[in-house]
Amino acid sequence: MIEAPYIGSLKAGPLGTIADVAGITVGHCTLDDGAVQTGVTVIRPHQGDVYRNKVPAAASVINGFGKSIGLVQVDELGVIETPIALTNTFGVGTVANAQIRHAIEANPSIGREWPTVNPLVFECNDGYLNDIQALAVREADYVHAFEACGSAFERGSVGAGRGMSCFDLKGGIGSASRVCDIAGRSFTTGALVLANFGRLPMLILGGVAMGQTLSASEALKPEQGSIIMIIATDAPLDARRLRRLSMRAAAGLARTGSVYGHGSGDISLAITTAYTVPHLDDFLEVPALVSDARLDPLFQAVADSVEQAIVDALFSAVSVTGRDGHRRLSIKDITTT
Amino acid sequence: MIEAPYIGSLKAGPLGTIADVAGITVGHCTLDDGAVQTGVTVIRPHQGDVYRNKVPAAASVINGFGKSIGLVQVDELGVIETPIALTNTFGVGTVANAQIRHAIEANPSIGREWPTVNPLVFECNDGYLNDIQALAVREADYVHAFEACGSAFERGSVGAGRGMSCFDLKGGIGSASRVCDIAGRSFTTGALVLANFGRLPMLILGGVAMGQTLSASEALKPEQGSIIMIIATDAPLDARRLRRLSMRAAAGLARTGSVYGHGSGDISLAITTAYTVPHLDDFLEVPALVSDARLDPLFQAVADSVEQAIVDALFSAVSVTGRDGHRRLSIKDITTT
Amino acid sequence: MIEAPYIGSLKAGPLGTIADVAGITVGHCTLDDGAVQTGVTVIRPHQGDVYRNKVPAAASVINGFGKSIGLVQVDELGVIETPIALTNTFGVGTVANAQIRHAIEANPSIGREWPTVNPLVFECNDGYLNDIQALAVREADYVHAFEACGSAFERGSVGAGRGMSCFDLKGGIGSASRVCDIAGRSFTTGALVLANFGRLPMLILGGVAMGQTLSASEALKPEQGSIIMIIATDAPLDARRLRRLSMRAAAGLARTGSVYGHGSGDISLAITTAYTVPHLDDFLEVPALVSDARLDPLFQAVADSVEQAIVDALFSAVSVTGRDGHRRLSIKDITTT
Amino acid sequence: MIEAPYIGSLKAGPLGTIADVAGITVGHCTLDDGAVQTGVTVIRPHQGDVYRNKVPAAASVINGFGKSIGLVQVDELGVIETPIALTNTFGVGTVANAQIRHAIEANPSIGREWPTVNPLVFECNDGYLNDIQALAVREADYVHAFEACGSAFERGSVGAGRGMSCFDLKGGIGSASRVCDIAGRSFTTGALVLANFGRLPMLILGGVAMGQTLSASEALKPEQGSIIMIIATDAPLDARRLRRLSMRAAAGLARTGSVYGHGSGDISLAITTAYTVPHLDDFLEVPALVSDARLDPLFQAVADSVEQAIVDALFSAVSVTGRDGHRRLSIKDITTT
Repeated sequence: MIEAPYIGSLKAGPLGTIADVAGITVGHCTLDDGAVQTGVTVIRPHQGDVYRNKVPAAASVINGFGKSIGLVQVDELGVIETPIALTNTFGVGTVANAQIRHAIEANPSIGREWPTVNPLVFECNDGYLNDIQALAVREADYVHAFEACGSAFERGSVGAGRGMSCFDLKGGIGSASRVCDIAGRSFTTGALVLANFGRLPMLILGGVAMGQTLSASEALKPEQGSIIMIIATDAPLDARRLRRLSMRAAAGLARTGSVYGHGSGDISLAITTAYTVPHLDDFLEVPALVSDARLDPLFQAVADSVEQAIVDALFSAVSVTGRDGHRRLSIKDITTT
Repeated sequence: MIEAPYIGSLKAGPLGTIADVAGITVGHCTLDDGAVQTGVTVIRPHQGDVYRNKVPAAASVINGFGKSIGLVQVDELGVIETPIALTNTFGVGTVANAQIRHAIEANPSIGREWPTVNPLVFECNDGYLNDIQALAVREADYVHAFEACGSAFERGSVGAGRGMSCFDLKGGIGSASRVCDIAGRSFTTGALVLANFGRLPMLILGGVAMGQTLSASEALKPEQGSIIMIIATDAPLDARRLRRLSMRAAAGLARTGSVYGHGSGDISLAITTAYTVPHLDDFLEVPALVSDARLDPLFQAVADSVEQAIVDALFSAVSVTGRDGHRRLSIKDITTT
Repeated sequence: MIEAPYIGSLKAGPLGTIADVAGITVGHCTLDDGAVQTGVTVIRPHQGDVYRNKVPAAASVINGFGKSIGLVQVDELGVIETPIALTNTFGVGTVANAQIRHAIEANPSIGREWPTVNPLVFECNDGYLNDIQALAVREADYVHAFEACGSAFERGSVGAGRGMSCFDLKGGIGSASRVCDIAGRSFTTGALVLANFGRLPMLILGGVAMGQTLSASEALKPEQGSIIMIIATDAPLDARRLRRLSMRAAAGLARTGSVYGHGSGDISLAITTAYTVPHLDDFLEVPALVSDARLDPLFQAVADSVEQAIVDALFSAVSVTGRDGHRRLSIKDITTT
Repeated sequence: MIEAPYIGSLKAGPLGTIADVAGITVGHCTLDDGAVQTGVTVIRPHQGDVYRNKVPAAASVINGFGKSIGLVQVDELGVIETPIALTNTFGVGTVANAQIRHAIEANPSIGREWPTVNPLVFECNDGYLNDIQALAVREADYVHAFEACGSAFERGSVGAGRGMSCFDLKGGIGSASRVCDIAGRSFTTGALVLANFGRLPMLILGGVAMGQTLSASEALKPEQGSIIMIIATDAPLDARRLRRLSMRAAAGLARTGSVYGHGSGDISLAITTAYTVPHLDDFLEVPALVSDARLDPLFQAVADSVEQAIVDALFSAVSVTGRDGHRRLSIKDITTT
C-alpha cells in the first residue's frame, strides 16, 4: 500500500488543511443517490457577512476550459463578496442563485439602494460518475454546505468532490497547509483543491512517476477534467500580490504530472484573511503589506500546499460507483493487494 | 422634439440593425407585470446548432463590475457554443440553466461522451425599475426569446431591455449596422447593446453635450448601471482580430459621454459569421482572414455602430413605470413639449 | 482662428499641466536640425531617486502596435523605478541604455548586490517629419531632458514631441490637469500626452467634428501614429486602482475622434505621488486608499485631462518642416486666415 | 557522475534541439574576457527576411520581473518581425538598436513608407559572473550571432548563456525537441532556454530531488535569476493556440523545482514555422489549423522539451570564472569525484 508522500520542507499547520488559516471554515453537502454522485462545497473566508466585509482576492486562469462564474468582477475589484462555492459544471447557475438569495436575505438593500452581488462559483465536470444532465444540485444544497462549515471537515469523496475523478482514480476534495517565516513573522498558507484531472500514466507522487507503474497503458490519452485550487493565507497582501500567489498553484499542479490539458479548466483563486474591505467606506485602511521581494516563502508555500492537497484528495477519497455502473477506485483500493 | 442623430460617415445596412449581418437573428421575452419589468434577449449567430458549429468570438472587459458568465472559456478557446443571452443581473443563473438544458436536448452526448457546454449570459442591473430581488426570470423565458428570434426585432423597452435605464432616461435594447469596404470587398458589421448606464448631465448625442441642456443638475453623480455591447461582422477574422474589434466598442461608448464608471459593467463581445468551428474535427479550415493592417474600416464600423446603437436604445425606448412607482421617461417623452 | 475648447466641468489646477500634481516635473531635450526633428521628454515623479523610492504605477495597452519598453515588469510589480522617458520609436534602445547608466551611477549596487533596473521608455513614430532611420537620439539627450525637469515646461513641438503629427496637423506634447473632490478631500490629477495619431477628417474638438470642416478629403484613410498618455494623481491608490484610472484614458482619446487605429500604439500609464515604495523593506506601509466606489471623480478627471492634453498638444504646437521637405502645419497656422 | 535524465515518453528529433523544427537555426556570439562573461544568442525562425514574412507567435509572462522588449506588439498582432535575440539584462537596448539597423538595411522603407519595426530581445541577469554594469554587448555582437546561425549549434556556457547561473550551478543555453502525432500527422516541437534561475536545494532532475543531496544548505533562500523559454513547432497554429502552448512551458519549468520566484523573469514565447504572414497583403491565407481539442500532444511536447532543455543547459555547461573571481561550477564538475 502506498503512503501519501509529504511535499517539500516547509512544515504544515496543526490541522494540515486550509482551516489552519485562522477564520477559514469549510462545509460540504454530498449527494449520493445512485446515478447522482455530486454535491456542493463552501469555503467561508470569515465568520461574518462577506458582502459587508469583502475579502481581498485574485485569480489565475491557467487553462480556461472552465465555466466558473464571478471572475470578471474579482479581476476588476480584487475582492470576493460571497463565500466560495464549488460544485459540478451544471450546478453553477443554481448555486449562483442560492448565493444571490442568501446575500439578499442578509442584506435587503442589495439590488435596491446597494449594488447587486457577485456570485462566485467554481466547478469541475463529474460527468463520468455523476448524471450531470440531471442538474441535481438544488439551492438548498448550497445552504446546507454553508451551514455545515467548520474548521474540521472531511476530504475526499465528499461535497463537490463526490463525483470527481483524478488520474483515472477517485479524486475530489483535498487540502493542506504550510507555515513560513518572513522577516521574523510567521504566516500560514493553505490550499483546498477540487481535483478532477489527469490520466493515470501521468501521475507523479512526491516526485515519483508512479502512474507509469500503476498503469498498463502507455498511450498518451487526452488529459480530462479540471482542477480548482483555492489558496488562503493570513499574510497581508493586496490583490496584485494575491494574483502572484495564485499563479504559483500552476507549479504545484505541474509537479503532479499535469501539463494543463486542453479540456481541463485549471483555475486558482488566492485570498487573504489579514484584513477585509468594508462595503461602505470612503477610504480603505490597509495593514502593512509583505513586500514583493519577500514573497518567495509564500510562493513556495502555495506550490507545496497545492501539490500536497492533490495528494490529499487522492488519499482521502473512497471508491465510488455512479451512473451506468461507472466506478472509480481510490488509490488506496488499487494499491491494497 | 429631438431627432436621433446619424453617427459617422459610413452607411448603414438595409435594416439598420445587427440583423444586417447575414444569419444573425434576435428575439425577446419581455416580462411586464407591475414591479416585474425585465426580460431576456437572445442573439442567434446562425440558424444551426451553435454547439456543433461554434462561432469565433472574443471579448473586451472595459470595466469589470459585472456578473456576465462564460467569458473565461471564450478567452481561452475563442469561440461561443451557445446563442448569446442578455438578462438582468440576477437572471444569469437561471438563463445559464436554460442554455444548458437547451444544449443537452439538442445534443444528448453533452456531459456524457462529449464535454460540457459553456453558457454565455450577459447582464445589466435593472433594479431601479424592476424588482430584481424577485428573481422573476424563468428558464422558459429563455426558450421563448430563442424561439422568437428573427431578423426583424423590436428595440427599446423590450426583452432584457425592459427595465433598463440610461442617462437617467429609459434605456434598453438598441441596434445599428455599418457597411465598409476592404480591398474591394464589402463587409457588414452590426452592434446590439443593452444600454443601462450614465447620468443625464453626461449625455452626448451625436457630439452635442445634450445632457447639460436637459439636466437641471450639475453635480457629478456616480455613473450607474452597465452596458453590454455585442458586435457581429461577416468579415473573416480569428479570435485575436475579434478581440481587437471588441475593444473599439470602448470608443463608441465614450463618445456618448461615458467614462466607464466604477459601478458600470462595460463589456463587449465580437463574433464573426464568416465561418464556424465544427465541434468534432482534427484540423480547422479557415477562410482567408482580413489582414491586421486592413482592419481600420472595421474598427470605425464598430465604434460607429455602438454609438448609433446607444442612440437607438434611447430613441426606441418607451417610458416605463416599475417597482415602487419608479418611472423612467423616454427621451422622446421628455423632449416632446 | 479657432480657440482651444475647455473640456468638461471639472476645474484645472493653477498651472493647467501635469505639474499641478505636486512633485511632478517635466523636461525636454529637443533635436531640431534639418532632417532630424525629434527629441526626448522626461517626467520625474518626484525629486528623489526613483530606484530607491519606487512609484506605484499601472498601464493599459489600448492598442498594442507599439514598442514601448518596461511594461512587463510594471504589470507584475505595480511600480516604476526610473523616471518616465518619451522619445521616437527607434530611440527607445538608446534611452533605455541612458536610464540604466543613470540608475547605476546613483546606485552602484544595481546589478551587483541589488537586482537590475527596469528602464521605462515610451515612443511614437515621428518618421514623417524626422529621419527616424538616423537613430539620432543620444544617451546624453536623456540626461539633458532629465536635468531640464521643472514644474514650468514647454508643450507642443518640443522634446519627444518635436517631430510628431496629429490629425495630419502638427502634434507633440500636451498637458492638462483637473481637480476633484472625494469625501471632502481634494485631489489633483494631470495628464501629459505625446500626441501622434489621427487623420484630419476624424478630428473632434470639444465635441465638434471640426475635422470634417477643415478637411477637403472624405475618404476613410488609416489612422496613423500613436499616442502615449501619462497620468499622474496625488490620490492614494494601489496598482490595481491605477490600472482602472489608466483605462479611462481610452475615453478621453475616443472623444477626439480616435477609434484606436490598427497602426496606432495607444498606451497609457497612471502613477500616484501619494506614497513611494522603498527599494529595501520587509513590509510596506500604505496610506488609506480611495475606495473603488469613490473613484468616479478620478475617472472623469483622467478622461477630461487626456482630452484636454490632446487639445493642448495641437494648440501649443508650432509648424515644423523636417526631412525631405515634409511639413506639418499647426492648427493655429491653418486656421489663421 | 550524474547522467542527464531523459524526460517523458515522447521521442526527440534527430538533433535533439530546437533546430529539429525545420527552418530554425541558432547562432551565438560569446564574450569571454575576464570580468566580461556574456554574449548574444539569435534564433532565426526561417532563412528569409522576418520583417517581410512575419512569424506567428505568442508569449506567456509567468513571472514578469523581466526587461524583455517587444512583447506589447507580439500580444496585439500575434507575430514577430525580427529574429529572436537573447542577451543580458543591460544588453537589450543595444541589441534592439542592432535589430532596428539590421531590419532597415534589408528594408529601406521601414520608418518611411512602411511602419517601424518591433525589436524582440529577451534577457536574463548574468551579473554574478559578468560585469553587467560594463554594458559590454555591442551592436556588432548581434550581427555576429545572426551570421553564425545554423542548425548545428553549441549549448551551455555560450552566447547569451555565457554568464548565466542555474541552481547555483553553471547554467546557460539548453535545447531539446519532441515529436508527436496528431490525427496521423507528425509534428516536431522544440525548446531553447536561457536558464539562469533557481537555488541548488530546489533542483529536481528527472523527478529526483537532487538538489537536496548536492546541497549542504537547507535554508530557503530566494530564487534568483530568470529563464527565457523559446518554443518552436511546425504544427499549424494561430496566435491564440500558440499562447496556449507557451503557457505549458510553466509546467516543464515547475518540474525542475522552480516556483517562479519573485526575482525571476520567467517568460516563454511560442512560434510556428508552418506558415508566415506577409508584410503587405489584404487577406491572409492560413493552412488548416490543429483543432484545440487535439492540442494535448503538443502541450506535452512543450512541457517535456522545456524540462529537457533545462537539463541540457546544466549538462552542456562548462565551469566559468568571471568578475571578482566569482565562479560557477558545472553540474558535471561538481559530481565528478
